[in-house]
Amino acid sequence: MLERYGHGGDLRTAEECFGLPSSSFLDFSSNMNPLGPPDAVRETLARYAVYIDRYPDPVSRKLSAMLSERHGVEESAILIGNGAAELIDLVVRGLRPRTAAVAVPCFSEYGDAIRKTEAALYEGRLHEADHYRLEKRWVEKALEQTDANLYMLGSPNNPTGALVEPDLVKDLLAHGAAVVVDEAFMDFVPEEESYSLAHEASQTHNLFVIRSMTKFYSIPGIRLGYMLGHPEKIAELRRLQVPWSVNSLAQSIGEAVLADEAFVQNSMRWLQEERPWLMDQLEALGFHVYSSKTNYLLLRLPNDCSLTSTELQGMLGLKGVLIRDGSRFPGLDERHIRIAVKLREQNERLIAALKACIWEQGGITGDGI
Amino acid sequence: MLERYGHGGDLRTAEECFGLPSSSFLDFSSNMNPLGPPDAVRETLARYAVYIDRYPDPVSRKLSAMLSERHGVEESAILIGNGAAELIDLVVRGLRPRTAAVAVPCFSEYGDAIRKTEAALYEGRLHEADHYRLEKRWVEKALEQTDANLYMLGSPNNPTGALVEPDLVKDLLAHGAAVVVDEAFMDFVPEEESYSLAHEASQTHNLFVIRSMTKFYSIPGIRLGYMLGHPEKIAELRRLQVPWSVNSLAQSIGEAVLADEAFVQNSMRWLQEERPWLMDQLEALGFHVYSSKTNYLLLRLPNDCSLTSTELQGMLGLKGVLIRDGSRFPGLDERHIRIAVKLREQNERLIAALKACIWEQGGITGDGI
Repeated sequence: MLERYGHGGDLRTAEECFGLPSSSFLDFSSNMNPLGPPDAVRETLARYAVYIDRYPDPVSRKLSAMLSERHGVEESAILIGNGAAELIDLVVRGLRPRTAAVAVPCFSEYGDAIRKTEAALYEGRLHEADHYRLEKRWVEKALEQTDANLYMLGSPNNPTGALVEPDLVKDLLAHGAAVVVDEAFMDFVPEEESYSLAHEASQTHNLFVIRSMTKFYSIPGIRLGYMLGHPEKIAELRRLQVPWSVNSLAQSIGEAVLADEAFVQNSMRWLQEERPWLMDQLEALGFHVYSSKTNYLLLRLPNDCSLTSTELQGMLGLKGVLIRDGSRFPGLDERHIRIAVKLREQNERLIAALKACIWEQGGITGDGI
Repeated sequence: MLERYGHGGDLRTAEECFGLPSSSFLDFSSNMNPLGPPDAVRETLARYAVYIDRYPDPVSRKLSAMLSERHGVEESAILIGNGAAELIDLVVRGLRPRTAAVAVPCFSEYGDAIRKTEAALYEGRLHEADHYRLEKRWVEKALEQTDANLYMLGSPNNPTGALVEPDLVKDLLAHGAAVVVDEAFMDFVPEEESYSLAHEASQTHNLFVIRSMTKFYSIPGIRLGYMLGHPEKIAELRRLQVPWSVNSLAQSIGEAVLADEAFVQNSMRWLQEERPWLMDQLEALGFHVYSSKTNYLLLRLPNDCSLTSTELQGMLGLKGVLIRDGSRFPGLDERHIRIAVKLREQNERLIAALKACIWEQGGITGDGI
């Protein structure tokens, strides 16, 4: 299976599973911005050779200063990491929760990071009836059922694409819990200003926001993320971090892409046009598409489709198209898949491949085909 | 001070301390191979742009296979890391020692990694009378004085350059302790075959060897190291590792440089010629040079030099030459400095700068000047 190592975007495993060269796959299983990487990345790479034989700046001074300006917070409120994955691991280790709670389905790394520690893990289910959004009753139930002193929430949540209402996070904080909000995909959200807790985190002892530069700037190969938190807490977590954790190319690229305003505008425009178009196409095929604020979509398979998500992933893989199998997410099942939104022509290929799979298994007779 | 963040090679801090642009420093404070990086690194960088928007292989399959061949061990005995620093941190966290012992002076990360856990730290001093080599009596004293169940040793040790006799490691193992041998600089040692424990580690439950590709291949900017250990132990440590910890450029560069045999030969030839020459020059200036098997030298200041190591570092810094201040290593004092061996012309500049410093303070009147 494609998620042998727990995640999508694993082209080496795709090669092994489907017998096609890795360069031939159209990868809807990882949620990269298809407009990226920005030109500045290539330019930075071309200049980088002379810097590789020097140690990275151990505290990423220049990039921290730029991010401090972007978010209007002190530099001491920012911790740069070797991808958001390092920061998820670091904050759990640093906070040493007694019990940590997650709202499933969600990014598997929250649970994985918690299971590496001695903390108990509470997995509170999001409900299909709520379109898998985090609602007030989820919070009330969690507060009732668990003594969790750490909550890890995605906003937008992965794989659902739903935002978390800031008031619900404030409820949890008011009950004395620490909250980590993973905003890895927040850069894609036009309503970022109303939903991001980045600025609040810099002034709140128990609130941490994790951001990724991987997805929006399409640079997962080089590893770059950051965390915002209260300066006292950030200093504690920094002490736990491995030295030179953030490589110098990642720092240079981060500095370069943050200066590229046009890339941001183009990306926002593309997504606002392309996501509704793709949703329409999928719905016409009979898929139920959950509302998403970001660059990926959670889908429920058409009612009259007899394939499981695992079977559909396998059939698409042989056609060179990679998707995420929903049955691999706790809280979802074999009726769900997750796909990225890509460029029009790529999305058309996805639609055609989905049509072909459904046709081959003879499961749909409706108007969609 | 140059070691504000605990290490040498920090050109940003050097800029701030000495008011010169970072590109102008001649950096004897970090121990990179001056022949590197190999040409393959530049070629890999040129090809890399198309890979940056894909996730790294989460388990570094190709590089693991090459390292498995290089060391004649199973791939399952190898764990690739985000620099040796990540692996030092990981092995300490994974082994959860009650007490961990180090032989000072040594690389500061051993102690730093131990202090991040709940383990007690035993720092057993190496003696000037033994030329700071690890001798049998150090082992006997440590076994007597501490209940350490983990020993972390550098071979060659940093900053002394001395190798650890494999029999002493076996003594510790026989007493039931786990041993981590940091062989970050072993690639520079012609006697590697007699001294490296890489192969033994792959077959011994309590022995771990950490290697770095940073120093020999001169690529500290991009972070690449690996560990050898028993496959069962490596599997446990792998579960603790952060996903995609090793970026894809590091993997590609590792694959490329391992194929470059000529670079290895040239590097060994350079060091065998240059280290004795530099030692002679330093001794002529009145420095005591401790015997080193690798590409850096620990020095004691000339007896009639009234400067401290911190003062000398400051004076050299203003001349654009960076060295390590020995007083920052527990177990050494302000009479010691550490320098890298570089290319002849660079070494000549170091000698000239040292002469000028000693002359300025008027401390030496002997034949050296």
